[in-house]
Amino acid sequence: MNDSAQSTTEKAAAAEAAALQLANLSDTTRTNAVMQIADELEAQKDRILDANAADVERATEKLEAGEYSKAFVDRLTLSSSKISDIAEMVRSVAQQEDPLGKTLEARELDTDLNLFKLSVPLGVIGTVFESRPDALVQIAALSLKSGNAVILKGGSEAAHSNRVLYEIIEEATAGIPSGWAQLIEARADVATLLELDESVDLIMPRGSSAFVEYVEQHTSIPVLGHTEGLCHIFIDNQADLQMAKEVIIDAKVQYPAVCNAVETVLLHQDITEQLLPELATGLKDEGVTIRGDETVRRLITATEATTDDWSSEYGDLILAIKTVDSVDAAINHINSYGSKHTESIITDDASTAHEFMRRVDAASVFHNASTRFADGFRFGLGAEVGISTGKTHARGPVGLDGLTTYKYYLKGDGHRVGTYAGESAEPFTHRDTDSSWPWAIELN
Amino acid sequence: MNDSAQSTTEKAAAAEAAALQLANLSDTTRTNAVMQIADELEAQKDRILDANAADVERATEKLEAGEYSKAFVDRLTLSSSKISDIAEMVRSVAQQEDPLGKTLEARELDTDLNLFKLSVPLGVIGTVFESRPDALVQIAALSLKSGNAVILKGGSEAAHSNRVLYEIIEEATAGIPSGWAQLIEARADVATLLELDESVDLIMPRGSSAFVEYVEQHTSIPVLGHTEGLCHIFIDNQADLQMAKEVIIDAKVQYPAVCNAVETVLLHQDITEQLLPELATGLKDEGVTIRGDETVRRLITATEATTDDWSSEYGDLILAIKTVDSVDAAINHINSYGSKHTESIITDDASTAHEFMRRVDAASVFHNASTRFADGFRFGLGAEVGISTGKTHARGPVGLDGLTTYKYYLKGDGHRVGTYAGESAEPFTHRDTDSSWPWAIELN
Repeated sequence: MNDSAQSTTEKAAAAEAAALQLANLSDTTRTNAVMQIADELEAQKDRILDANAADVERATEKLEAGEYSKAFVDRLTLSSSKISDIAEMVRSVAQQEDPLGKTLEARELDTDLNLFKLSVPLGVIGTVFESRPDALVQIAALSLKSGNAVILKGGSEAAHSNRVLYEIIEEATAGIPSGWAQLIEARADVATLLELDESVDLIMPRGSSAFVEYVEQHTSIPVLGHTEGLCHIFIDNQADLQMAKEVIIDAKVQYPAVCNAVETVLLHQDITEQLLPELATGLKDEGVTIRGDETVRRLITATEATTDDWSSEYGDLILAIKTVDSVDAAINHINSYGSKHTESIITDDASTAHEFMRRVDAASVFHNASTRFADGFRFGLGAEVGISTGKTHARGPVGLDGLTTYKYYLKGDGHRVGTYAGESAEPFTHRDTDSSWPWAIELN
Repeated sequence: MNDSAQSTTEKAAAAEAAALQLANLSDTTRTNAVMQIADELEAQKDRILDANAADVERATEKLEAGEYSKAFVDRLTLSSSKISDIAEMVRSVAQQEDPLGKTLEARELDTDLNLFKLSVPLGVIGTVFESRPDALVQIAALSLKSGNAVILKGGSEAAHSNRVLYEIIEEATAGIPSGWAQLIEARADVATLLELDESVDLIMPRGSSAFVEYVEQHTSIPVLGHTEGLCHIFIDNQADLQMAKEVIIDAKVQYPAVCNAVETVLLHQDITEQLLPELATGLKDEGVTIRGDETVRRLITATEATTDDWSSEYGDLILAIKTVDSVDAAINHINSYGSKHTESIITDDASTAHEFMRRVDAASVFHNASTRFADGFRFGLGAEVGISTGKTHARGPVGLDGLTTYKYYLKGDGHRVGTYAGESAEPFTHRDTDSSWPWAIELN
């Protein structure tokens, strides 16, 4: 083990020790500390901007050398108003309902033997993210609000910004068990982090699909993230065509770079002639390039779509359009090419909608709505932790609950299992109750 | 890829295709099919016993050669009454409440824009288990009841029994989408199965700690299982000593081989003199060997406990006893050596109990109750899928819910996200409602 790996292991151990204490802080203590982070970010704007300027300077050199894109440098660049926005985002995390200590189930097993299932923090969250310095702040705030310790690894391009943001967070949370937030900086330490399955309970990678996939393949720690968002909208032959056009344009144009934007539209063959010309005009007015199959290209001017297009997450103003002869064909296409993220049907026929939604295998299935609604804020989940395309633990848009697990509390009066076994076994009562566990007592 | 790996990949693909259909079967269809499995097992007892005899014969040779233990051969051996017990267990799975289509959340996002979070099957469950042929039947029944396809890999020692049980299950479920249950038989195919993260949604290993750990280290598929059960009971100085003695004996003696049996007892130093002699007599009457620290050995006759004992899951009539000077010391010992499975405190002081339960990091924390209550049936979860010591997805005793995930259903009326963005953005209503999604319509 080299020095850097050793140090990552030590940081994870410190985070693990802090997590045990963090789990027992009251919501008030955690909330106040998160608010304090927001205040300190605003109070130390100049320090943040100075550090960020150093990152931006180096990035601009790479931009001029053709290594970085303009968009990349823009994402990296902070300003006074951006810092205020980040502080506001942190305050909104602080104001979320406490995700901890909720009584999820309460059951009497027998007289004076009562079981409670309560939400508790996961423990230690490991995060690896790219470029945007606000990611570090957001992840730290979400972790602290949910009582988790966190290990933060940002991109080297934001090294100066990340270090200063981390220092400010540490200073702002001096009253929180020390070690709760850890910063790791060397790229080589990511490999070490991914091996620490004894100390780290969840890995949240943020970045490109390839990066998230790399993380998934190189750790046995559970991963919360999404590799791909290849969303479809199917326009049924019973669709309101004006609605179809408006929803497609919204889902493609409003923010094409995000994972819940539509990439492929499937058109029922019965309505292609009525819908396509007007849809194409609407899309072209918004600067969208269309790639279509043969039927599409007979009706409108479009680039030829190849099989590759059905698997492409453009993240851009490009839309693939394919004609299908039935809802069955649409479902089969989506279950073959989709990324299990978000799929929508436009139809006035409730039973077709029901069938589509039941049979399509995706985290979110929509009827007469834009795919772009698949988002923690829009779903009313509060602060968004991320979007998951995995099926276990948390699926789809994930709120603070995604950073929690649960613990079973059983309160008895000397109960032994022998009483419920053998020839004179007593039965359990197994009666769900309304009582809750008095969790909200702050421990020292 | 060799032929066998090819065939495992094909079997997983067939299971994946079947899973899409299985997800849409009504509870009645799934329940009837599970009941049919129970009936066929009883109807074909002779066929099962013949196949089992071949396995037992080979195992007996290995027993005589000293390769297998008597207990191992006993677990492998079926009888007419054991088959009836297995059929009864299958019927109890069939009679569980449907875990699918439950509306877990319902929220109005805006007028005519309603979100529903519904429980759905995971998809394809991969299972690898050892020796006991009843494991195959139980896993198949749990998977089918919860709408999941399943890939079954049993131990080679039960190959004949497993093949016949599998064939009977296939025959009994002829009305279920074909391919829903797959059998793989070669040891080499396990490695292939663990790589199929595109087709398999969850791996459930059953076997030794070393085996479960091997599985966890060799797959990026989520794993549901437990490697170790190193449970403690802490006897506080405010404990009812008679209760302490009875609970310890129950937790050690009633079934010492299981993961929720107690392995280490922590005694508060203030009560060692009063409790130990009588406790030791009680334990010795039940055949339990005690390993104790220096204080313990001053008071009773016991083998010397070394540091290794604090990390030992004996699974046998052996108990380690250590004295501690406070609840703090007990908590620290457990958080250092425990397996995060089940931990219990015996005390009459509610606030000490509260502190212990909050600060100990384990799936189940008990007050004045035997650790042996950590069990799906006793917890009232119905059919037990397994016990998980992981923190994500499902923790502690896991019922049928552990084989489900959820899906977000959003029903709109042409809603676009553009309406809720920009200068004239409309607000969301985000109001939780009592409505539910009409999931229980059988699809063709």
